[in-house]
Amino acid sequence: MSKAERTKQFIIEKTAPIFNAKGYAGTSMYDLTEATGLTKGSIYGNFENKDDVALAAFDHNYSLIVEYLRKQIELCPNMVDRLLVYPKTYRHFLELPILKAGCPILNTSTEADDTHPLLRKKAIAALGFWKMAIEKSITTGIERNEIKASTDATAFSFLLMALIEGAVMQAKVTGSSEVLHVTMDYLERMINDLRT
Amino acid sequence: MSKAERTKQFIIEKTAPIFNAKGYAGTSMYDLTEATGLTKGSIYGNFENKDDVALAAFDHNYSLIVEYLRKQIELCPNMVDRLLVYPKTYRHFLELPILKAGCPILNTSTEADDTHPLLRKKAIAALGFWKMAIEKSITTGIERNEIKASTDATAFSFLLMALIEGAVMQAKVTGSSEVLHVTMDYLERMINDLRT
Repeated sequence: MSKAERTKQFIIEKTAPIFNAKGYAGTSMYDLTEATGLTKGSIYGNFENKDDVALAAFDHNYSLIVEYLRKQIELCPNMVDRLLVYPKTYRHFLELPILKAGCPILNTSTEADDTHPLLRKKAIAALGFWKMAIEKSITTGIERNEIKASTDATAFSFLLMALIEGAVMQAKVTGSSEVLHVTMDYLERMINDLRT
Repeated sequence: MSKAERTKQFIIEKTAPIFNAKGYAGTSMYDLTEATGLTKGSIYGNFENKDDVALAAFDHNYSLIVEYLRKQIELCPNMVDRLLVYPKTYRHFLELPILKAGCPILNTSTEADDTHPLLRKKAIAALGFWKMAIEKSITTGIERNEIKASTDATAFSFLLMALIEGAVMQAKVTGSSEVLHVTMDYLERMINDLRT
């Protein structure tokens, strides 16, 4: 990595948690200079504008979770066990440092849907990628006779994502993990019911 | 209503959709003066500060949905049918004018959880009120022998809310109603399964 690339990476890593906690509109130039210890000029020497930092910050926040999940998922040869990684992870999300400010897809989606086309596009792509990964696990599981052939991969993906995001929202704002336990228990039963 | 109360109400009604679409941090004084046609001085003659407008706007947005749901719910004598009002309503939320900018509980929760204690408190109270209403329908349904006695009212409320909010988030950001149809079909089956 060149010095410029290292600075850029440093700015992304320092500002990404702030964008996730405060949102795009709620994050000020002061937040960015304070978090990095850099001047406004130095930040804008590395990024074209605030959008440019915000988009890179979203990619960073999202990739942290994808990498975390991928590591757990790759340990599971069985496709049902792969799907179980989601409830196992989100059950404890209030204690997970990378999800401290909540799910970046949820936070970015609700903020950007009416206001920020570029961030909205990122959130849509992230949701689409997640959905594809779940569908792929299900269709592979069906091929390998690990998952019932009657399973509707698209419908199941939508339900899994809705249960997780809806429970994360409630748990994050109330600070209570009860809704996570109830919802993840239910999702685990749904996933185990897929077994042949 | 006095003239001052009418002006206050006018400001709330004109600015509430903006707060729901743009969020608290994303709504500027310019947005408020433009939406109302009033000066900054006139707005702050009726509200102490931006927080004061935002909190009243949340109450307004939330009460529109509560009133809309209440009207449908009161038409149903059977408690299972009362619960079915939720999926029936949210299935079409992309076409409902009062939900144009999405669910105010979802939007406010994800923005305020890390940033705005007063708005966060409002969102928590709204979630609590919704949960209590669902639990009350279920316990009344059990008493009247309309709903299976084995139903866990708290768990069911969490799941109903998670499915709706998680599906609303996905539908709102993607603009596609497919996730709503799949999720609300599923929720309707869950609710119908509660019947004795």
